[in-house]
Amino acid sequence: MIYTAQVKVMPHKELLDPQGKAVLGGLSNLGLTDIKDVRIGKNITLQVEANSADDAKKIAEEAAKKLLANAVMEMFEVVVNS
Amino acid sequence: MIYTAQVKVMPHKELLDPQGKAVLGGLSNLGLTDIKDVRIGKNITLQVEANSADDAKKIAEEAAKKLLANAVMEMFEVVVNS
Repeated sequence: MIYTAQVKVMPHKELLDPQGKAVLGGLSNLGLTDIKDVRIGKNITLQVEANSADDAKKIAEEAAKKLLANAVMEMFEVVVNS
Repeated sequence: MIYTAQVKVMPHKELLDPQGKAVLGGLSNLGLTDIKDVRIGKNITLQVEANSADDAKKIAEEAAKKLLANAVMEMFEVVVNS
Protein backbone atom coordinates (compact mmCIF):
# COMPACT_ATOMS: atom_id res chain seq x y z
CA MET A 1 0.00 0.00 0.00
CA ILE A 2 1.12 3.55 -0.69
CA TYR A 3 1.36 5.88 2.31
CA THR A 4 1.93 9.61 2.18
CA ALA A 5 4.63 10.78 4.59
CA GLN A 6 5.21 14.46 5.33
CA VAL A 7 8.74 15.29 6.46
CA LYS A 8 9.06 18.77 7.98
CA VAL A 9 12.68 19.96 8.19
CA MET A 10 13.37 23.17 10.14
CA PRO A 11 16.60 24.91 11.18
CA HIS A 12 17.47 24.37 14.87
CA LYS A 13 16.03 27.06 17.13
CA GLU A 14 19.51 27.95 18.42
CA LEU A 15 20.83 28.80 14.96
CA LEU A 16 20.45 31.98 12.96
CA ASP A 17 18.30 31.55 9.84
CA PRO A 18 19.65 34.07 7.30
CA GLN A 19 17.00 33.20 4.70
CA GLY A 20 14.27 33.88 7.28
CA LYS A 21 15.87 37.18 8.27
CA ALA A 22 15.98 38.26 4.61
CA VAL A 23 12.28 37.41 4.15
CA LEU A 24 11.44 39.26 7.39
CA GLY A 25 13.09 42.37 5.90
CA GLY A 26 11.11 41.92 2.68
CA LEU A 27 7.81 41.59 4.56
CA SER A 28 8.62 44.70 6.56
CA ASN A 29 9.30 46.62 3.30
CA LEU A 30 5.86 45.47 2.08
CA GLY A 31 4.27 47.01 5.18
CA LEU A 32 3.64 43.72 7.01
CA THR A 33 5.25 44.98 10.21
CA ASP A 34 3.10 42.78 12.47
CA ILE A 35 5.28 39.82 11.51
CA LYS A 36 8.07 39.71 14.08
CA ASP A 37 10.05 36.62 13.10
CA VAL A 38 10.37 34.27 10.15
CA ARG A 39 12.02 30.86 10.00
CA ILE A 40 12.17 28.89 6.78
CA GLY A 41 12.50 25.16 6.40
CA LYS A 42 11.52 22.45 3.97
CA ASN A 43 8.39 20.40 3.64
CA ILE A 44 8.92 17.12 1.82
CA THR A 45 6.07 14.84 0.76
CA LEU A 46 7.06 11.21 0.18
CA GLN A 47 4.94 8.45 -1.39
CA VAL A 48 6.12 5.32 0.43
CA GLU A 49 5.21 1.75 -0.45
CA ALA A 50 4.95 -0.19 2.83
CA ASN A 51 2.86 -2.81 4.62
CA SER A 52 1.83 -0.54 7.46
CA ALA A 53 1.87 3.12 8.48
CA ASP A 54 4.58 2.26 11.04
CA ASP A 55 6.82 0.77 8.33
CA ALA A 56 6.21 3.82 6.15
CA LYS A 57 7.21 6.09 9.02
CA LYS A 58 10.42 4.11 9.58
CA ILE A 59 11.35 4.39 5.89
CA ALA A 60 10.61 8.13 5.85
CA GLU A 61 12.71 8.64 9.00
CA GLU A 62 15.61 6.74 7.43
CA ALA A 63 15.33 8.94 4.33
CA ALA A 64 15.30 12.06 6.50
CA LYS A 65 18.38 10.94 8.45
CA LYS A 66 20.36 9.84 5.39
CA LEU A 67 19.53 12.57 2.90
CA LEU A 68 16.70 15.02 3.60
CA ALA A 69 17.88 16.69 6.80
CA ASN A 70 21.31 17.84 7.94
CA ALA A 71 21.31 16.81 11.62
CA VAL A 72 23.97 19.40 12.49
CA MET A 73 21.79 22.32 11.48
CA GLU A 74 18.27 20.97 11.14
CA MET A 75 15.64 19.01 13.03
CA PHE A 76 12.90 17.00 11.34
CA GLU A 77 9.56 15.45 12.13
CA VAL A 78 7.66 12.82 10.17
CA VAL A 79 3.88 12.48 9.95
CA VAL A 80 2.30 9.61 7.97
CA ASN A 81 -1.21 9.88 6.55
CA SER A 82 -2.61 6.62 5.21
CA MET B 1 -0.50 38.71 21.46
CA ILE B 2 2.01 36.71 19.44
CA TYR B 3 0.62 33.87 17.32
CA THR B 4 2.65 31.25 15.49
CA ALA B 5 1.53 30.77 11.89
CA GLN B 6 2.77 27.89 9.77
CA VAL B 7 2.72 28.53 6.03
CA LYS B 8 3.16 25.39 3.93
CA VAL B 9 4.08 26.14 0.32
CA MET B 10 4.09 23.23 -2.16
CA PRO B 11 4.50 23.05 -5.94
CA HIS B 12 1.19 22.56 -7.80
CA LYS B 13 0.34 18.89 -8.36
CA GLU B 14 0.16 19.40 -12.12
CA LEU B 15 3.74 20.66 -12.35
CA LEU B 16 6.98 18.72 -12.51
CA ASP B 17 9.13 19.17 -9.40
CA PRO B 18 12.75 18.78 -10.60
CA GLN B 19 14.19 19.11 -7.07
CA GLY B 20 11.90 16.30 -5.88
CA LYS B 21 12.91 14.12 -8.84
CA ALA B 22 16.60 14.67 -8.04
CA VAL B 23 16.05 13.68 -4.40
CA LEU B 24 14.05 10.62 -5.51
CA GLY B 25 17.09 9.55 -7.53
CA GLY B 26 19.36 10.10 -4.54
CA LEU B 27 17.13 8.05 -2.24
CA SER B 28 17.05 5.27 -4.81
CA ASN B 29 20.87 5.29 -4.94
CA LEU B 30 20.88 4.95 -1.14
CA GLY B 31 18.75 1.81 -1.43
CA LEU B 32 15.49 3.41 -0.32
CA THR B 33 13.57 2.04 -3.29
CA ASP B 34 10.24 1.87 -1.45
CA ILE B 35 9.91 5.62 -1.87
CA LYS B 36 8.05 6.15 -5.12
CA ASP B 37 7.65 9.90 -5.34
CA VAL B 38 9.08 13.01 -3.69
CA ARG B 39 7.77 16.57 -3.80
CA ILE B 40 9.60 19.37 -2.06
CA GLY B 41 8.15 22.63 -0.83
CA LYS B 42 8.78 25.17 1.89
CA ASN B 43 7.61 25.37 5.45
CA ILE B 44 7.64 28.90 6.83
CA THR B 45 7.01 29.70 10.49
CA LEU B 46 5.87 33.26 11.21
CA GLN B 47 5.56 34.97 14.58
CA VAL B 48 2.63 37.34 14.09
CA GLU B 49 1.49 40.03 16.50
CA ALA B 50 -2.31 40.23 16.28
CA ASN B 51 -5.42 40.61 18.42
CA SER B 52 -6.89 37.25 17.47
CA ALA B 53 -5.95 34.01 15.71
CA ASP B 54 -8.22 35.06 12.81
CA ASP B 55 -6.31 38.33 12.38
CA ALA B 56 -3.01 36.46 12.55
CA LYS B 57 -4.23 34.09 9.83
CA LYS B 58 -5.23 37.02 7.59
CA ILE B 59 -1.80 38.64 8.01
CA ALA B 60 -0.03 35.33 7.27
CA GLU B 61 -2.19 34.79 4.17
CA GLU B 62 -1.36 38.29 2.94
CA ALA B 63 2.35 37.58 3.46
CA ALA B 64 2.02 34.29 1.56
CA LYS B 65 0.21 35.94 -1.36
CA LYS B 66 2.57 38.93 -1.58
CA LEU B 67 5.95 37.29 -0.99
CA LEU B 68 6.16 33.72 0.29
CA ALA B 69 4.38 31.77 -2.46
CA ASN B 70 4.46 32.13 -6.24
CA ALA B 71 0.79 31.59 -7.16
CA VAL B 72 1.69 30.52 -10.71
CA MET B 73 3.70 27.53 -9.56
CA GLU B 74 2.84 26.98 -5.91
CA MET B 75 -0.12 26.55 -3.59
CA PHE B 76 -0.06 27.41 0.10
CA GLU B 77 -1.96 26.70 3.26
CA VAL B 78 -1.84 28.57 6.56
CA VAL B 79 -2.35 27.08 10.02
CA VAL B 80 -2.28 29.29 13.13
CA ASN B 81 -1.41 27.90 16.57
CA SER B 82 -2.05 30.27 19.44
